[in-house]
Order: sequence, then C-alpha cells, then structure tokens
Amino acid sequence: MSDDSKLLPHRQAIDSIDKQILDLMNERAKHARAIGELKGTGVVYRPEREAQVLRRIKDLNIGPLPDEAVARLFREIMSECLAVERPLTIAYLGPEGTFTQLAAMKHFGHAAHTVSCLTVDESLRLVEARQADYVVAPVENSTEGSVGRTLDLLVATPLQACGEVVLRIHHHFLRSQAVDFSELDMVYAHAQALAQCQHWLTKHLPDTVKRVAVSSNAEAARLAAQNPRTAAIASQAAAEIYALNKIASNIEDEPNNTTRFLVLGHQETTPSGQDKTSLVVGAPHRVGSLHNIIAPFMQMGISMTKFESRPSKANLWEYVFFIDIEGHVLDEKVQAALTLLREQAVFVKVVGAYPVAVL
Amino acid sequence: MSDDSKLLPHRQAIDSIDKQILDLMNERAKHARAIGELKGTGVVYRPEREAQVLRRIKDLNIGPLPDEAVARLFREIMSECLAVERPLTIAYLGPEGTFTQLAAMKHFGHAAHTVSCLTVDESLRLVEARQADYVVAPVENSTEGSVGRTLDLLVATPLQACGEVVLRIHHHFLRSQAVDFSELDMVYAHAQALAQCQHWLTKHLPDTVKRVAVSSNAEAARLAAQNPRTAAIASQAAAEIYALNKIASNIEDEPNNTTRFLVLGHQETTPSGQDKTSLVVGAPHRVGSLHNIIAPFMQMGISMTKFESRPSKANLWEYVFFIDIEGHVLDEKVQAALTLLREQAVFVKVVGAYPVAVL
Repeated sequence: MSDDSKLLPHRQAIDSIDKQILDLMNERAKHARAIGELKGTGVVYRPEREAQVLRRIKDLNIGPLPDEAVARLFREIMSECLAVERPLTIAYLGPEGTFTQLAAMKHFGHAAHTVSCLTVDESLRLVEARQADYVVAPVENSTEGSVGRTLDLLVATPLQACGEVVLRIHHHFLRSQAVDFSELDMVYAHAQALAQCQHWLTKHLPDTVKRVAVSSNAEAARLAAQNPRTAAIASQAAAEIYALNKIASNIEDEPNNTTRFLVLGHQETTPSGQDKTSLVVGAPHRVGSLHNIIAPFMQMGISMTKFESRPSKANLWEYVFFIDIEGHVLDEKVQAALTLLREQAVFVKVVGAYPVAVL
Repeated sequence: MSDDSKLLPHRQAIDSIDKQILDLMNERAKHARAIGELKGTGVVYRPEREAQVLRRIKDLNIGPLPDEAVARLFREIMSECLAVERPLTIAYLGPEGTFTQLAAMKHFGHAAHTVSCLTVDESLRLVEARQADYVVAPVENSTEGSVGRTLDLLVATPLQACGEVVLRIHHHFLRSQAVDFSELDMVYAHAQALAQCQHWLTKHLPDTVKRVAVSSNAEAARLAAQNPRTAAIASQAAAEIYALNKIASNIEDEPNNTTRFLVLGHQETTPSGQDKTSLVVGAPHRVGSLHNIIAPFMQMGISMTKFESRPSKANLWEYVFFIDIEGHVLDEKVQAALTLLREQAVFVKVVGAYPVAVL
C-alpha cells in the first residue's frame, strides 16, 4: 500500500470529525444566542459559567491533546460564540502592556476587542464610563509584590472584580548581537525586572556592567537595539518587536515568576464552586489593629491568599488592608467573618468575588 | 419560570455539546498522530491538506458562527493537533514585524513558535540552516507594490514557497493626546504608509503639517508618543504598545489595502485544487523579451496574478521577472507553458506551487 493510501482512512476520519465539530460549534453558538436573548439587555459574559466550563473540560480531558491546549481551544470557542452576540471590549494598561494585553487575550480569547490605555487609572475610567466592558489590571507579581497604583484605585472604584488571570512571566537577556560579555557596558531593564533577575545578573555578568533602570522593559529593549555594547532584560514580545537576540532565556530567579491580574466590570459574579473574594479594609492605626483584622478569618477557618497593608491616602492615621480570601462572598462562613470584621474595621469594601483562575 | 431555570436546558445542551467537541478533538489528534507516524521523520505539515480542510469547513458552514470564525477555530485546532507531534518553528522579519508576525500566527495558529529576525535575509537563512521549519516573508503590498529585498532573495534561495498569507492592513492616525489639528507640527510614518494614506492626509491636515518618513511605523509611533505636537501613522499593535489614541481609523486610501506574504520551507506541495505557482524568470535585455516571456502563458490560457520585472543583480544586461500564475506547477497546461518559456528565457526557476490563501 502506498503512503498516500495508508493516510487516506485517517484523512477521511478527520473530515468526518471536522464536520461533526463544525456542526456542534454552530449548535453551541445557537444555544449561546438563546441564552443571550433570555438575558435580554443584561450581561452576556458570565465568568463563573466560563470557569465551570473550562474546569469541566480539563477534568474530562483524557488526551492526547494536553489540558492547556483544550482549555485554550474552548476559551476561543466561547469567545467566538459570545462575539456572535456582541464582541466584548477590554481596556488594559498599554505602555508596558504586552503582558497585560496577553492576560486580556488569555482570559477573553481572540474574538474580544482590546483597547490600550496610557495608565491603569484610565483603563478603569473607560469601563466606569461604559466605553469598555471590562478592564484587566495587574495587581501583583509573585517576586516583586503588589502593583501599588492598582491597589489604590481598588479603594475607590465602583467596579466589581469578576475574574482573575495568572500569567507566567519570563524574562530574557537580549542583545542586538551575540557578542562576548566582556564587550558589554550596560544592561537596561525596568527596576522590577532587574530585581527579579538579580541572581542571574550577579552570577553571569562581570562586575563592570552597569545595571540601569528605565521606565519599562520595552524601553530597555529599544535602547539595547541601538547599541551592541548594551543589553536588555525583557519579554519575548519585546525581543520580537525590536528584533533582539535571546542570549539567555528565562533568567528570572524565581522559576514560578507570575503576575496576577484582576478583571473588573459592572457585574457581581455568582459562586462557581471554587472562588476567591477580594476585600479592602480600613482600620485605625493602633496596636492590635492588625490582629483584629486577621482574627475573624482565623475564627471562621478561612484561608487568606493575600494580605497587605498600605497607608491610606485619605487619612494619615489610618491603614488600608488588601485581603484576598478563599471562598465566595455569598458563602455562609465568609458572611459570618465579614460581620465580625465590620465590628473592628472603619470600613469593609468587597471588591468582588470571582472564580479562581483556571488556565 | 425563573431566568435561571429557563437558562438551564441551554446550559445542559452546551455541556453535552462541549463533551462531544472535546472527544472529537482528541479523536482528531489521534488520527493526526497516526498520520505523523506513517510519515515517519518526514514533514508533518501539509499546506495543501490544511487549505483543503479550511475550504471545506467554510463551504459546509451554515452559521450562526461566521465563516471567518470557524476558519480561525479550525486553524487553531489543526495547530494544536500538530503541536502534539512537534510544534513548528516559524522565522519572520522582526523590526517592522508586527504584521509579519500576525501573518505567521494567522497561517500557523497560536501553537506554533515564532522566531523574530533582524532582516528578511536572516529569516530565510534560519530556515535554510534548518534552525526553523518555515519562514513567512512579505512580498507585496496591494497599494505600494513589491518588497524588493524579498524578491531579490527568492532568486537565489534553495527554499520552496509552500503557502501564501494575505493580511488586511489598516493604518490609523495616532496621537498621544486628542488635540486639535492646528496644534500639530509633524506626522511620522514609514514612507510606504505615508504613500498609502496620502489622500487622507491631504484632505484632513493643514498644509503646515510636515510629513516625516522614518524607518518604520513602530518608530513613528514611538516618536509621536513623546511629543503631543506630532502624530504617527501606524497599526493597532503600535498604538497599543505606545498607548497612543486612535484619532482616525483605517485612513488608508485603498480600502482593500492588503499585504501578501509567502511561506517558504524545504518541501514541495502537491496540488490542493486551487493553487498558484511563483516563478522567477531571467531574460536578456532586448526588444521583444517581455513579449516572449508573457506569450507562453497567453498561449496556454493561464492567468497571471503578478508580473514584475527587476534589473538582475548579477548581470547588467539581464532582467529578472517575478511571475505568479494561477494553477499548480504539476498541471499539464502549466508544464506546457513552462516548456515554451524555457525556450525563451535564460533561466526559469519555480519558487514554488502552493494553495491560494483561504482565510
């Protein structure tokens, strides 16, 4: 049997499978449309439902396609089905935005429209003014900690958190030409990236190489592209835009270097079965405050996944705590903890309850 | 009946559909793997087969998902199925590369790896040296004509064209702030973009605004981001990277402004049923040459989709013609035309035969 005649039965099988997948996808889009019509002018995007669909797909998957591949494909299928109704518009922080845009695409799929903004402030404002449906904003990096500006904005925004995205962040060592480290005077990067890669830098670069903090890794890449005696720490995307060579990959000290983003919109999200709740808590600056804030969660057996204090901008003598807990705000024990907390705090703001990131 | 109970049957239907799609996709991946095993160490990527699958899907599609959406989804499904075997590595021109990378992603899906290169030369060399599987190189723009460097490289490269990608190119008028046109001194863009938008520029901008050609539209965007009295013509991607405001969208004079790319690799592609063949033909510089080159195609009733002459780099007295024709090089009448052509030409090189772009 010739090669082609051996291939033929498999190709015929694939043709038949494709027809079935196509029909099922259109069938799915019809049901999505029916759901949209039942909801009328209400929200078409349901984060808790999408999270459930993706979790179920990963549970059901037995391969050979890896879990990540099927989750990616279903994210795109949902994205296209939703776009038949109305494509979503997603605002995000632009200048250093490669990662934030990647996060938006990862969460909403490629059928969503993205709108870049100059600042995190502006990206939230766009959604507040209903010129965009959702905003994706960076909140913390696993190595370098919180994104202060986003946290400050969470205190006042009327928007609700309705999702989170976790993105693995890799840094690369980039140069315009692959020359010896002895012919290197400077390495450019954002201060946070320099911090995230300090062990690698110390181990591999001569002491004479200056580390220069610039406004963004993209800017670092641009500068490194202009002078072969310099290098940059930046992302794959920046390497591609400025056509730099990747001299060393994944040079971040912490192998699980991730950035976490919140998705904010106008809607409250019902429980998905595996949720988190983000809170902002104001407390007086006095001995015991910290303990009083933590105690209600301990008492109710609720795990905290984030706890951070920042000085309040409004009042010199108050502190603001940013707390993420496991569980949905509608869970009984979360409700009980919040009741206890409100007795201790100046204010308690629920930023939102949302499904734990699936992908 | 409550809203939720009305939604329930649709959600249950979607769950059942998703399970079926998942199983079918894995079934598909198994057949793809079986095909890969039959081919052994041979090429796993078959452009003619992918084109046939996508054309069939578009033919079979009855909605509500639009043809473009299902084609995109199937491109991604094929991309993930192929990546189970071995993800493809695609080289592309980096610096102005946003469009070229988009073209690579459009053609190979998001499971493929892309490698940026500083020049078109380098991107071809990477594949010639088998450090990448395929290269995507821009060949012509519908408004501005050919990309000369790529054409020159086609003369000598041992690579075969095995696909084409057509990308709609939109240009936008970008500024860091939305201020009046009277507060505008300069507009930056690549010379090609300035040419593509000249009617819009003449109609909308005061005569006092200088048009400044810079090395790329990305560079134009970067410059415009630094000075509110300047503007740039650039892509959506550049607007996002530099957080510029889109003052006017799609300002290109020609509404069907497209850029065409060739996919080059080491393989010859068998006929897909709707193909093109790219040729490079050398001819002496004498009266009648042009006619002698065209005549064989006329005689055999073959349509030409591109015909362009460039002076040969090798010989001052020779011309090189770049010709795209409808049909596959293995078609009888193409063979006949080539036989006639070889009697007239100094040399005839078949750059490749490949499926007409589907998406």
